[in-house]
Amino acid sequence: MEKQQLLYEGKAKRIYATDDTDVLWVVYKDDATAFNGEKKDVLEGKARLNNEISSLIFSQLSEEGMNSHFIKRLSETEQLVQKVEIVPLEVVVRNIVAGSMAKRLGIEEGTPLSKPIVEFYYKDDELGDPLITEEHIDLLQAASEEEVSQLKIMASSVNTHLLTLFSKIDIRLVDFKLEFGRTKDGQLLLADEISPDTCRLWDQHTNERFDKDLFRRNIGNLQAGYQEILTRLGGQSCSK
Amino acid sequence: MEKQQLLYEGKAKRIYATDDTDVLWVVYKDDATAFNGEKKDVLEGKARLNNEISSLIFSQLSEEGMNSHFIKRLSETEQLVQKVEIVPLEVVVRNIVAGSMAKRLGIEEGTPLSKPIVEFYYKDDELGDPLITEEHIDLLQAASEEEVSQLKIMASSVNTHLLTLFSKIDIRLVDFKLEFGRTKDGQLLLADEISPDTCRLWDQHTNERFDKDLFRRNIGNLQAGYQEILTRLGGQSCSK
Repeated sequence: MEKQQLLYEGKAKRIYATDDTDVLWVVYKDDATAFNGEKKDVLEGKARLNNEISSLIFSQLSEEGMNSHFIKRLSETEQLVQKVEIVPLEVVVRNIVAGSMAKRLGIEEGTPLSKPIVEFYYKDDELGDPLITEEHIDLLQAASEEEVSQLKIMASSVNTHLLTLFSKIDIRLVDFKLEFGRTKDGQLLLADEISPDTCRLWDQHTNERFDKDLFRRNIGNLQAGYQEILTRLGGQSCSK
Repeated sequence: MEKQQLLYEGKAKRIYATDDTDVLWVVYKDDATAFNGEKKDVLEGKARLNNEISSLIFSQLSEEGMNSHFIKRLSETEQLVQKVEIVPLEVVVRNIVAGSMAKRLGIEEGTPLSKPIVEFYYKDDELGDPLITEEHIDLLQAASEEEVSQLKIMASSVNTHLLTLFSKIDIRLVDFKLEFGRTKDGQLLLADEISPDTCRLWDQHTNERFDKDLFRRNIGNLQAGYQEILTRLGGQSCSK
């Protein structure tokens, strides 16, 4: 497999073509951003941590029959993924109230939900990734009604798997954001990453944060938090 | 019927008890507010115009079998309504993209929708009346699942009636906000008001605005716009 031209550079990753038109080469970046890019920093080691964690989680999901675009980890900061057309929705699953939901609804952060809630946000940086309803999704033609039903089922299934995975390592899975893509035959496939950049992960006993809120809220060392997650997941502590 | 103690003062109305525990006495105010109270003014005549227009519209809906809390108009600025427990939701129906929806979704104001869209906003001034999903409504216990279904059906029905009513007077019904209440036997009933404060109303041919955007956006005389609506509806032009 050969890395070819840069196709896309996002806030946290660069995506390259390969000699296989169905396969992309992902390079994680050390850049940290929050609040739609208003807060920025370069945090050495973040690329490696997210690549390692996301690779571990996608591998584990795959072993449990939950497929994703992930093919394999290539190096500390690189992985191969299946090429998909990204659905322009952020699918957020919440088990405990936090972040924007706490603000929107005026409910205290940390309040457990009696059942998980799935929300859709429209992936559009200029609009600030707004919360949207299923009628908006239809209007924007972001996904079909059938796809929205599937996205909810798939997101709930990922939640079930992740809740088990994280509870085994004494982590509370507060909420997380998923992205999905369409394969060339039109099937929905879990895509993007699953890492402390995209999940809120609190210690089961102390509620210590091990996720991007460390950076967003300046409440601790991001790399130490992400390393804690990687270590508890059984990943290597430093080199590949 | 006797007006008794003040029960509640809102941004646009004062609500008084009467000697009948099931009936409230509503007094419209000349106060205009926008952007959650950040922009304020007193616009003489607004109380009369909204009371007259809302009374006319509720009467017409009632003649067509669509009941509301409206009992009768008492004076230029007063009406009697049935007492209900207000559901803490603003139910917004949109036929044409405008206002917050244009901003949220990045769609040009004035774009017609191929089918009407119903949105729910949580009535909470401190939170800025945020857009919420049906799962949020359930979480907040703002309304039951059964009530949400009913609210959508009732709001669509009001839309059908209002589209006909306004098209007859060469007005485009762009969007509007409804509120509903529960009667003492738990039935949902259309409540609050239907007026240029709560509807976007554009001239069919020129798209001239005859609604609260005149005030929100400083684009014209509010009273002249509201008077145009009252006149076209066949209401009296000045005294009761």
